[in-house]
Amino acid sequence: MALEFDLIDTYFAPLSQGFDSVDVGIGDDGAVLNIPKNHQLVVVTDTLVSGVHFPENTAPYDIAWKALAVNLSDLAAMGATPASYSLALTLPEYSADWLRSFSDGLRDLSAQFAIPLIGGDTTKGALTITVTAQGWVPNQQAILRSGAQEGDVICVTNTLGEGALGLKLALNDWHDSFTENDLSSEEKNRALNALNRPMPQLAMSTDMRGLVNSAIDISDGLLADLGHILNRSSKAIKRRGVQGELSLLKRGHSGVKNLIGADIELSQLPLSSGVTRYVNQTKDWSLPLSGGDDYQLCLTLTEANYQKLNDVLKAKKISLTVIGQVVKQQGIRCFEHGVVQKN
Amino acid sequence: MALEFDLIDTYFAPLSQGFDSVDVGIGDDGAVLNIPKNHQLVVVTDTLVSGVHFPENTAPYDIAWKALAVNLSDLAAMGATPASYSLALTLPEYSADWLRSFSDGLRDLSAQFAIPLIGGDTTKGALTITVTAQGWVPNQQAILRSGAQEGDVICVTNTLGEGALGLKLALNDWHDSFTENDLSSEEKNRALNALNRPMPQLAMSTDMRGLVNSAIDISDGLLADLGHILNRSSKAIKRRGVQGELSLLKRGHSGVKNLIGADIELSQLPLSSGVTRYVNQTKDWSLPLSGGDDYQLCLTLTEANYQKLNDVLKAKKISLTVIGQVVKQQGIRCFEHGVVQKN
Repeated sequence: MALEFDLIDTYFAPLSQGFDSVDVGIGDDGAVLNIPKNHQLVVVTDTLVSGVHFPENTAPYDIAWKALAVNLSDLAAMGATPASYSLALTLPEYSADWLRSFSDGLRDLSAQFAIPLIGGDTTKGALTITVTAQGWVPNQQAILRSGAQEGDVICVTNTLGEGALGLKLALNDWHDSFTENDLSSEEKNRALNALNRPMPQLAMSTDMRGLVNSAIDISDGLLADLGHILNRSSKAIKRRGVQGELSLLKRGHSGVKNLIGADIELSQLPLSSGVTRYVNQTKDWSLPLSGGDDYQLCLTLTEANYQKLNDVLKAKKISLTVIGQVVKQQGIRCFEHGVVQKN
Repeated sequence: MALEFDLIDTYFAPLSQGFDSVDVGIGDDGAVLNIPKNHQLVVVTDTLVSGVHFPENTAPYDIAWKALAVNLSDLAAMGATPASYSLALTLPEYSADWLRSFSDGLRDLSAQFAIPLIGGDTTKGALTITVTAQGWVPNQQAILRSGAQEGDVICVTNTLGEGALGLKLALNDWHDSFTENDLSSEEKNRALNALNRPMPQLAMSTDMRGLVNSAIDISDGLLADLGHILNRSSKAIKRRGVQGELSLLKRGHSGVKNLIGADIELSQLPLSSGVTRYVNQTKDWSLPLSGGDDYQLCLTLTEANYQKLNDVLKAKKISLTVIGQVVKQQGIRCFEHGVVQKN
């Protein structure tokens, strides 16, 4: 935990102080944390590499925000209560301005969830940020990718494709049928904000407990991440079938074919005005379907539980949109107004 | 926790399986771990950058070993029982041979302590490895840097300077009075092994509980790391003094002068035959004093507790050598056969 000492004291130690949960924070070989009773520990890790996971000209404030946000988003998807995080920061050179802005980004996001920085390491090299975050869930109440069931409705929070639209703005990456001039300044701001300062859906993570069968955060894009749910859930169904001798599937025969898939109705995807116009003008659904960088949650649950959860979330002004259903088939079929689309 | 899927399945998933403590391992948004009752969580993080923390030609097996070992060494210094670890691996390119060797290194070291890999992230970029490790300590029994007391004896485990001698061998970095020809092949192997495959002192970490006042692992070099103990302990003594109104020191006056320092007797430093010959021929004590990369423990405890701990460790064939004492003074004074040395 050898953060360079002047860096720690100036920029990072303030992010560690004043938390009852932290028995020992930054400055020792490791941090010592108090544990709530009857809970399990949830650990997540994500790395951001400059030029790969964010454009190289991204502001340090936004880099820090995003590095923490993508981890908190994983905690949110598991129904966890965030507890703390550590930072491994590899920097090409020391810059006080850069570090001030970076630590401000960490501070502002972590303050929203009252979680401390508990340690880390700073090293010299190409700009790379790894955050590991810890959270708690009541015993056996973690929400997994593997719990989807045939008949579940598939929902997503808020809107999709916004981060991918922001990336097009940041990289100035357009084609003939759509350019940034097709967006209002409000739409541009919204998209850039989604790219640079994604908000992890922690405001609803604990509400999902006991209601949701499976969840994942949409970082790779809706189709990829929903695919992870279907793969993991299919394996789990096979495993349970084998264990209960309720299935004809042979032991060790996993990974061949999925038992469940999904039908998605594209016209139901919740899209902002900017993304809607992009899709309409380009006929290209890739932003909401595979753009990634959304950090919304995709979840599956029974229709009855959807009504319950939606009532809770309405009061919090979080929208939860049904976009499809888990069905007994291979893969994901996309419909547009009921007409199946070719992949 | 998006390890690239073929990498996970082939190289990393096997390191995650078969552990009762892991409720959910690699493959979900995060890992879910069971917590022992009446314990606190200890979290440590260290990053290794190629060419900075290990020579660029280091074998991938050894890189992995070291990346995990330096973290387990931090857990050892805190008196923690290791529980699990996650891996953030940034790689310039995909190589099956490289990954096989790397995962073998992780497997062989983690198997010694029966701890699972619980997740991680693989990204493309300059070779950088961040490991975050989790451990447990019984409530309030973590051993900190901040507990040293005036009168404590200062001990180190095993021998010092071995990793730094290994680094000289790896970099072929010698001067006139000493070259690698002055070392036997056994001495060379021992030094290179200390550099590339340091063994975290977890075999004794739980024995220290209740006996040791302060501990740190020697990663930066004895003087630097002992200095960390003295700084942190001085601050803690001031804090306690102020709180108990037993001190004349004013509130907020910390960080000005240390209340405790150390006297070290160089002739007592435990050195291998190779490091001894190096020191004798060059009159240069930098290998054991500031070479770093030792991953031995430096600890302070009362004379009486030293006898108790030493008896326990003798049975485990771990040597614990008294090298000096905590005294009421500024800084660290080094003696050679009782004669004080200039810094």
